[in-house]
Amino acid sequence: MKALVYKGAGEKSLEDRPRPSILQPTDAIVRMRWSTICGTDLHILKGDVPTCQPGRVLGHEGVGIVEQVGTAVSSFETGDHVLVSCISSCGKCSACRRGMYSHCETGGWILGNKIDGTQAEYVRIPHADTSLYPIPAGADEEVLVMLSDILPTGFECGVLNGRIQPGSTVAIVGAGPIGLATLVTAKLYSPAQIIALDRDDNRLKVAKEFGATDVVNIDKEDVQAAVMRLTGNTGVDCAIEAVGLPASFETCQRIVAAGGTIGVHGLKVDLHLEQLWDRNISITTRLVDTVSTPLLLKTVRAGSLDPRPLITHRFTLDKMLDAYDTFANASSTKALKVIVEMP
Amino acid sequence: MKALVYKGAGEKSLEDRPRPSILQPTDAIVRMRWSTICGTDLHILKGDVPTCQPGRVLGHEGVGIVEQVGTAVSSFETGDHVLVSCISSCGKCSACRRGMYSHCETGGWILGNKIDGTQAEYVRIPHADTSLYPIPAGADEEVLVMLSDILPTGFECGVLNGRIQPGSTVAIVGAGPIGLATLVTAKLYSPAQIIALDRDDNRLKVAKEFGATDVVNIDKEDVQAAVMRLTGNTGVDCAIEAVGLPASFETCQRIVAAGGTIGVHGLKVDLHLEQLWDRNISITTRLVDTVSTPLLLKTVRAGSLDPRPLITHRFTLDKMLDAYDTFANASSTKALKVIVEMP
Amino acid sequence: MKALVYKGAGEKSLEDRPRPSILQPTDAIVRMRWSTICGTDLHILKGDVPTCQPGRVLGHEGVGIVEQVGTAVSSFETGDHVLVSCISSCGKCSACRRGMYSHCETGGWILGNKIDGTQAEYVRIPHADTSLYPIPAGADEEVLVMLSDILPTGFECGVLNGRIQPGSTVAIVGAGPIGLATLVTAKLYSPAQIIALDRDDNRLKVAKEFGATDVVNIDKEDVQAAVMRLTGNTGVDCAIEAVGLPASFETCQRIVAAGGTIGVHGLKVDLHLEQLWDRNISITTRLVDTVSTPLLLKTVRAGSLDPRPLITHRFTLDKMLDAYDTFANASSTKALKVIVEMP
Amino acid sequence: MKALVYKGAGEKSLEDRPRPSILQPTDAIVRMRWSTICGTDLHILKGDVPTCQPGRVLGHEGVGIVEQVGTAVSSFETGDHVLVSCISSCGKCSACRRGMYSHCETGGWILGNKIDGTQAEYVRIPHADTSLYPIPAGADEEVLVMLSDILPTGFECGVLNGRIQPGSTVAIVGAGPIGLATLVTAKLYSPAQIIALDRDDNRLKVAKEFGATDVVNIDKEDVQAAVMRLTGNTGVDCAIEAVGLPASFETCQRIVAAGGTIGVHGLKVDLHLEQLWDRNISITTRLVDTVSTPLLLKTVRAGSLDPRPLITHRFTLDKMLDAYDTFANASSTKALKVIVEMP
Repeated sequence: MKALVYKGAGEKSLEDRPRPSILQPTDAIVRMRWSTICGTDLHILKGDVPTCQPGRVLGHEGVGIVEQVGTAVSSFETGDHVLVSCISSCGKCSACRRGMYSHCETGGWILGNKIDGTQAEYVRIPHADTSLYPIPAGADEEVLVMLSDILPTGFECGVLNGRIQPGSTVAIVGAGPIGLATLVTAKLYSPAQIIALDRDDNRLKVAKEFGATDVVNIDKEDVQAAVMRLTGNTGVDCAIEAVGLPASFETCQRIVAAGGTIGVHGLKVDLHLEQLWDRNISITTRLVDTVSTPLLLKTVRAGSLDPRPLITHRFTLDKMLDAYDTFANASSTKALKVIVEMP
Repeated sequence: MKALVYKGAGEKSLEDRPRPSILQPTDAIVRMRWSTICGTDLHILKGDVPTCQPGRVLGHEGVGIVEQVGTAVSSFETGDHVLVSCISSCGKCSACRRGMYSHCETGGWILGNKIDGTQAEYVRIPHADTSLYPIPAGADEEVLVMLSDILPTGFECGVLNGRIQPGSTVAIVGAGPIGLATLVTAKLYSPAQIIALDRDDNRLKVAKEFGATDVVNIDKEDVQAAVMRLTGNTGVDCAIEAVGLPASFETCQRIVAAGGTIGVHGLKVDLHLEQLWDRNISITTRLVDTVSTPLLLKTVRAGSLDPRPLITHRFTLDKMLDAYDTFANASSTKALKVIVEMP
Repeated sequence: MKALVYKGAGEKSLEDRPRPSILQPTDAIVRMRWSTICGTDLHILKGDVPTCQPGRVLGHEGVGIVEQVGTAVSSFETGDHVLVSCISSCGKCSACRRGMYSHCETGGWILGNKIDGTQAEYVRIPHADTSLYPIPAGADEEVLVMLSDILPTGFECGVLNGRIQPGSTVAIVGAGPIGLATLVTAKLYSPAQIIALDRDDNRLKVAKEFGATDVVNIDKEDVQAAVMRLTGNTGVDCAIEAVGLPASFETCQRIVAAGGTIGVHGLKVDLHLEQLWDRNISITTRLVDTVSTPLLLKTVRAGSLDPRPLITHRFTLDKMLDAYDTFANASSTKALKVIVEMP
Repeated sequence: MKALVYKGAGEKSLEDRPRPSILQPTDAIVRMRWSTICGTDLHILKGDVPTCQPGRVLGHEGVGIVEQVGTAVSSFETGDHVLVSCISSCGKCSACRRGMYSHCETGGWILGNKIDGTQAEYVRIPHADTSLYPIPAGADEEVLVMLSDILPTGFECGVLNGRIQPGSTVAIVGAGPIGLATLVTAKLYSPAQIIALDRDDNRLKVAKEFGATDVVNIDKEDVQAAVMRLTGNTGVDCAIEAVGLPASFETCQRIVAAGGTIGVHGLKVDLHLEQLWDRNISITTRLVDTVSTPLLLKTVRAGSLDPRPLITHRFTLDKMLDAYDTFANASSTKALKVIVEMP
């Protein structure tokens, strides 16, 4: 089968690889129909993810059809259409029992990282019963690829951790794919204001189309002044850092209201407790657990959540390298998420 | 001034009454601009509310302009446009400190009940600082009358108590004003399904217009069978009783899913613990506290919540008796809420 | 092997039965060391539990040693000392993923009900990975039998559902085993008052020894008057019905404070919504899920929770019929929980 | 009257000052019976608190007797014994309505900071109805001084923010007064382990007496190794920084388990998001709101919480300067909290 393989820092290739086979009775083999590329895949390619070694098939997102199941798999059978979660969960360990699948003792984020992933014609899914989700009949299957990772990430790390409620004011720092995924899932709670901040006017234009009530170009305006003006001088109830840079986290600290929340990602940053300590702030860090996938599937099915606008480009597997180029050069290609269709 | 006065069971009149004056330093006098009639007012007129004695000016909802404030009022001054809450709250007692304003030791539901109310040109508001809400400039003031009682009631007793979340399935038993207020505020949380149940096809048609995803005429269909069919045989996550009759509560008990919630009103009913005990159900009873009024004001201002469709008829104060007739005969007049405009 | 078998309404016998064997790859066979008898076993013997058919080995509680595991069991191996949960949980279905193990699609309360149970020398445990709990080295294993059912029941249905917090006032109606299990687990949250109510002075004496701050004999005092006197006329924050009779539920309704909770069991009762509707009460029904078992194991290990006083009598398996007699005649034998030791 | 006055950085004196008088109708004048000194008072004396200007009477804690009330005070009258909260709360503004009294628009921490405080014979208390708490008859009044600030601080910032539950593992970094206040209030939730960390063996000895299950001297042991050893290699569910130094916050980051919480104080620190981002951590900053004071009063009254061991030294007002010396030199005097008795 064809697969996209990480070859070491800066190198990848589309190669022929043997089809995976069942290793554990709880495994399933899935024939992939659609996959996509994640920002994390770009990190791997930079050599920044030491758990991912050269020779690894990348990819942790996608939709496919069950090809074969191990003897202990009871929820799926050959022919079932399934959504692959980016997080593998055994359902048994104490982390899984608490809904913290990202810390599953034998799972977590392993696909396309510690084991071969979904940017291939076939993939082996460990703990299949609790790591795949059935796709309801009649669903628009292709768009469900957005539920493998990016939408649960935006929802869990941004919206749920941020405790967004009807009437809340929200700022999203960074209007890239994660910021937009946060934005569209935030709307499920009817916040009063969603302010998108970015330095790219095109992204801000897209954010408006996705439902931002206000946008601020951080290169053209004093961010703190702008947010204070837009919020009647109180700051936002919830500031979400969707870039992963210290400067973005600094921004969040300057615009959050007393009693508010900051949701964060990556990197070492300065935490200004000397300014925050008396402001009753919660700062949360979180890996996506995909514990919200069933909920999000229901909202997509009900039409409350439409993932399609996140998809900007489409490729077939043989053009996988082009797909990477397009996604990696998002500022010129205006790519959000690319769909890769399998043969 | 003109005022609508309760004269004893079955009797009311529009009378001349002296204008109220400040009795406590925490009082305000409000010149009413708009008021409305509540189902509770009809209960009073039937003689069913013993705390309300003949001679009482009715009404606990409305919007007006502050005419005068007591010496201890610090948040409002003459000329301020204000929303009157149906619940008076001192802000000091232990119930108020816990957000349970309905049980305020010197407040709660007293307007148009234990003291004169808002169906008059002027009203005295006790604990004004914590029982009136400022109306933001530029607001459509008339529709805010819906925030005095019916929308917080639907939201607090139905939506919050029911713990409605994105993707939830909800059944609302009774598509009258309270049911519809629950429906429109439920939508703030993007439930996947809202099933409205009633015996009146017109009301069900209105429920559809308000956003119900499904409707069931309880006289024409087997309710339990219909709800099970609509929910893939699980029942609803949240069943809200919005009629106040034992039969409606029976219905709720038959259609709620394991792990679900039932929100209820009035009357003695049979609780089938022999059926419910093993189904992890929460049944909640609640008076409206109007603790959510600031949140709802934000959602109206943001356009997430539009109260206008609840208003079906308009009257001036001198036609108050006609307004009561129209509201009391809702099945023929198709009235939801009537607005009464003051001179 | 010897086993206690239900023979139809009113009949049971201690019989020789074949040892169970692995049926599913997720099964384990456990050699029992200690078991006990539950009030539910008495219900079965009255013929009141239609899911339990004659020929069934009773019992859903106990501690033992793993004898054999199926091929898909990964968390346990032969020789492990284990606590058997009264609730079997697959860890995969949507109920289990939400922590509502009692509604597991292929589990729930099946042991000693729909499949053979623990009042035998050996038992087959389905979904072993997620239905057994490892016993830490050095534990007092015998007392852990109290963690199979009664302590999680008191804790989940009473304490957690009742939202007991430091400083809370609690009333427990019924000072039998379930009431006492609620009492000892309630103390984990340091409530200010725990009032035990019963008609049996001996039980009330025991409740005092278990930590009740006040006791009320419901045959000798006006219950409502007594509770109001003890609570400064407010009623209790949390009223727990631990008897299963309509009269006890009536009592709960009369003594709960505004904003309080009522936790209930069994039977059809009158729900006085005409009295409760305006008091912001939550009534919760719940089957035990045993989702709190890991937490309770930690508190026992830390010495915060001591289950031993619940054990009043001890028998060996060959005296199982005597054990039933003693437990069934608790008012004369003063039995709380009996331990049955296996050969 | 005698009062302790801040005279500028490094300077204080015990002076004669005029007795305060009612300025607002919501004020009360309280004759102090006992006060104490807070670490914050030492910060002021270093010149580190710019809101506090020279000439200010210090002190924000204490117990006294109401001497006089303004015309709008309705909950207290002359002669009432009262606990003074360190936080003044109007009960009206949106922060107070949300229970975030520390951000009261006209209150918050103003006593002994922006207005004269409690280290004097008399003090003026603004918003008296909602900033004083009645002392129940028969209470040991002196120890209630510990409920003005230090116990609510430990409880709200440490225990509630840390979401401590029965069975939790807790580390408290810093066994000074705040750490110990956290420790004694944490015990209300029956955590399985409380590990105290400090560099002073005497403090660790005291922590043991207060109920720490384990202690670690951070100068003598590798902190991370010690905590991992004590927690079966998982780290703690809740790490509380009770020192206010970057190094203590670093320690918290190294010992918190996945899914855990860090509660913090003061100063700018490095936040290692590059290590924390994938560990589902909540970091909370919080000023005390004293919203838990009624709850804590109930636990003291019930005997669940005994503040007395926090009191190590006693002085009369005329020895106030000695009291400051003793408190400031805690490492040699072994002072925790000092009580200052008024004439």
